[in-house]
Amino acid sequence: MRFTSLTSSDGVDERLFTLGEIPGVLWTPRDAAGPRPLILMGHGGGQHKKAPGVEARARRFAAEGGFAVAAIDAPHHGERPKTEEFFQVMAGLRAGMAAGEDAGGHLATMHAFLARQAVPEWRAVLTALRELDAVGDGPAGYWGMSMGCGLGVPLVAAEPRIGAAVLGLLGAHGLTESAAEVAVPVLFLLQWDDDRVPRDHGLALFDALASPGRTLHANPGGHEEIPEPETGSALRFFARHLAG
Amino acid sequence: MRFTSLTSSDGVDERLFTLGEIPGVLWTPRDAAGPRPLILMGHGGGQHKKAPGVEARARRFAAEGGFAVAAIDAPHHGERPKTEEFFQVMAGLRAGMAAGEDAGGHLATMHAFLARQAVPEWRAVLTALRELDAVGDGPAGYWGMSMGCGLGVPLVAAEPRIGAAVLGLLGAHGLTESAAEVAVPVLFLLQWDDDRVPRDHGLALFDALASPGRTLHANPGGHEEIPEPETGSALRFFARHLAG
Repeated sequence: MRFTSLTSSDGVDERLFTLGEIPGVLWTPRDAAGPRPLILMGHGGGQHKKAPGVEARARRFAAEGGFAVAAIDAPHHGERPKTEEFFQVMAGLRAGMAAGEDAGGHLATMHAFLARQAVPEWRAVLTALRELDAVGDGPAGYWGMSMGCGLGVPLVAAEPRIGAAVLGLLGAHGLTESAAEVAVPVLFLLQWDDDRVPRDHGLALFDALASPGRTLHANPGGHEEIPEPETGSALRFFARHLAG
Repeated sequence: MRFTSLTSSDGVDERLFTLGEIPGVLWTPRDAAGPRPLILMGHGGGQHKKAPGVEARARRFAAEGGFAVAAIDAPHHGERPKTEEFFQVMAGLRAGMAAGEDAGGHLATMHAFLARQAVPEWRAVLTALRELDAVGDGPAGYWGMSMGCGLGVPLVAAEPRIGAAVLGLLGAHGLTESAAEVAVPVLFLLQWDDDRVPRDHGLALFDALASPGRTLHANPGGHEEIPEPETGSALRFFARHLAG
């Protein structure tokens, strides 16, 4: 893991890094020393590691919760090269949506394609970050909505070092098997009037999670309209489950 | 309004009162003076104003939130006499449930019978409590699950002085018209494995609420198993919406 920059503002240190070909960013409370819970934050489709919604939440988690928070560019996103195979999968998704087909199947195909690469990448990043003094080998959490949920469900299912997750804005398509292996506490966010994910599909993904400690928060509004108080809910959720 | 006792413990004053034939209890922070938000707390079917779940939440709302909290015995509950008509409605409910019929219709009949009396009673109690120095004419909230929701939806629909409500554990049967008149923020609690209220019926009641600011929290477990963190969520919800 190679750090390429450090900037500090509003009580939060931001470090850009690369791990092999994976570009990432780490936010920690200013001058943080010693171990603390780490939250991995997955961005949405077409977004990147420093998308405004990702960065704003990450900074709040670091400043208010004292967490370390990391985001990476998902495969074929942000600074990373896009391959011909990615463009083909994307073309299938776009054509299906334009034809008014059920988007769930096409989204699941895209997410499965990305997850084959993204899951081992996240696990390698987690291993590298835990070597840092300001992170250490404490508990880790994962936050991801929409595509960040589609990559997050198989990640959380596969990675025993992740002890809690905030997921949502996605349906069960292609994820029921992974979801049945998620046993850690999950806060699941659903937008009641989601214009991209049918309500029943989101409820089905929540239902498919095996976690005894799962909780669903549903709010009015569309896919992009998670209300502000849910950031505080997520912060308290991680604080409750990643303490110690 | 006549106060019949005052006891104080753990930083909370508890006053028993009667308003006409309505027995009630008021919890306030110890030695509270001056106006503060008031929360009306409706108990469940077969319960009473000092049922353990009601009292524990009320004391926490007073001690941690600084709220005034009031509960009354619903008609035909607690210290209040039960009439022949109540026993008849109750017999219909029990027979229907024993016969394996859909309980929703019978519950709705019971709640409508009780609400005709309970709604004007709550409104009179609200008027009387606002005369007190430690309550004043600030904003009011309502908290009620199950039967407390069945009486609460028509109350909140009818009473403009109630500015926010925590409701849940009930289906839409008989309540869709009232729910469509509820426009204030609502936190709605649903138990994912509710053994008395079918999941779809609970989701339908949440959906029927007209509030732009409604939010749903669903948790695993049965009717009686709302997890502890939801008390803190309700407290923060009221603090957010009843401030000032």
